[in-house]
Amino acid sequence: MVEFERPLDALNHSKNKRVIIELKNNKQIIGTLKAFDVHINIVLADAEEHENAQIKRKLGTVFIRGDTIILITPQ
Amino acid sequence: MVEFERPLDALNHSKNKRVIIELKNNKQIIGTLKAFDVHINIVLADAEEHENAQIKRKLGTVFIRGDTIILITPQ
Amino acid sequence: MVEFERPLDALNHSKNKRVIIELKNNKQIIGTLKAFDVHINIVLADAEEHENAQIKRKLGTVFIRGDTIILITPQ
Amino acid sequence: MVEFERPLDALNHSKNKRVIIELKNNKQIIGTLKAFDVHINIVLADAEEHENAQIKRKLGTVFIRGDTIILITPQ
Amino acid sequence: MVEFERPLDALNHSKNKRVIIELKNNKQIIGTLKAFDVHINIVLADAEEHENAQIKRKLGTVFIRGDTIILITPQ
Amino acid sequence: MVEFERPLDALNHSKNKRVIIELKNNKQIIGTLKAFDVHINIVLADAEEHENAQIKRKLGTVFIRGDTIILITPQ
Amino acid sequence: MVEFERPLDALNHSKNKRVIIELKNNKQIIGTLKAFDVHINIVLADAEEHENAQIKRKLGTVFIRGDTIILITPQ
Repeated sequence: MVEFERPLDALNHSKNKRVIIELKNNKQIIGTLKAFDVHINIVLADAEEHENAQIKRKLGTVFIRGDTIILITPQ
Repeated sequence: MVEFERPLDALNHSKNKRVIIELKNNKQIIGTLKAFDVHINIVLADAEEHENAQIKRKLGTVFIRGDTIILITPQ
Repeated sequence: MVEFERPLDALNHSKNKRVIIELKNNKQIIGTLKAFDVHINIVLADAEEHENAQIKRKLGTVFIRGDTIILITPQ
Repeated sequence: MVEFERPLDALNHSKNKRVIIELKNNKQIIGTLKAFDVHINIVLADAEEHENAQIKRKLGTVFIRGDTIILITPQ
Repeated sequence: MVEFERPLDALNHSKNKRVIIELKNNKQIIGTLKAFDVHINIVLADAEEHENAQIKRKLGTVFIRGDTIILITPQ
Repeated sequence: MVEFERPLDALNHSKNKRVIIELKNNKQIIGTLKAFDVHINIVLADAEEHENAQIKRKLGTVFIRGDTIILITPQ
Repeated sequence: MVEFERPLDALNHSKNKRVIIELKNNKQIIGTLKAFDVHINIVLADAEEHENAQIKRKLGTVFIRGDTIILITPQ
């Protein structure tokens, strides 16, 4: 398993991979992680909003403000 | 596809294009992205408030405070 | 149309003009923009609180704390 | 009308005058503005809590934490 | 009446006196003000939690985190 | 009675003693105060979660994030 | 018992051990603590979301934003 010194290293390891992002409003955004910063602002490509394990709508590229995020996990 | 080093690069790439902004109060503002800063404060031109995929009202130019924003995506 | 480099430029452009401010508590304050700062603290003159497109009460000069603001738009 | 360069100038102009402060919990405190700082922490003298345009209780001198304030307006 | 240059001066003036602290969760703590800092973190001695003008329980010495405080007023 | 210059002095005085911590979600954690920092992040040893004056579960050592804390008081 | 000078020392002591993380949305994430930072952003490996003492779903590696965390305790 890959070892991470700091939490942002784990995000870096997920770059260009599909990730699931859970938001504080209970929405789930799934997409390819393209960029992030120390505020955990995130840019995903080919993103989709999911609800109850089904695609609710396609978003394409999306910028997500960090303070609305609960967790990020590989798909 | 365009590559972004940092999340704000993606916003820069959307300048002068139509974007959808989702707010924490469940409102959706659609407009032409004119300016943004590190707090994700945003200025849109020709903005409209949408609800259930219909225009609720026209706002013209609008300043949106960053901490009220969930996500920003091209229209 | 006027171009804005930074979001606060748009506020500067609205100085001494009538603006609508929407607050997180769903209230709407309409007044003449007199001053603002980087926290988006705002001072309006001749301000009125509106509800359902009607004046609820006259406030005169009012200081609004920035973190309570969702958006600002010309009337 | 007095012109204000910055929002705090308007508060300074209200020093030693009666002001109405609206709080995020929907309470209204009316008193004489004695002191404020950049966080909009406020001290009022001869303060009263109002509800539905009636005095609910007398508070005397009161320190109000800035982050609980929505707006401040002369009485 | 004592004049205060800054809001914290008013807290300093209340040191070793009984104060009422109203919290964002609607609780009221009454005690002797012993210490405070710029975050408005507070230490009270001989503190009591009040509800509907009655003592709900005795707390003795209590540390209150500043961001949970709405207002502080002499008893 | 011990005098405290700053609020954190009171926490320091409670080190290695049993304290009650009330959280914003209405839970109560009781344990031995082992460490704290300026954010009021706390580590307790032999901690228990209490509800209605009864132990709900034993937690052992627990790290509590400061921004979730309302107050801290000796048991 | 191990003594901790600062709260983050306790997190350091739990590195590579199973921890329970309670979130502000009442979810519980259990996993192996791999990394943390001063914001209490956390990376867990082999993480699972639990509800009512049962596994709700397996998450694998997960990045948790610090401001969503209430407490962290060894399993």
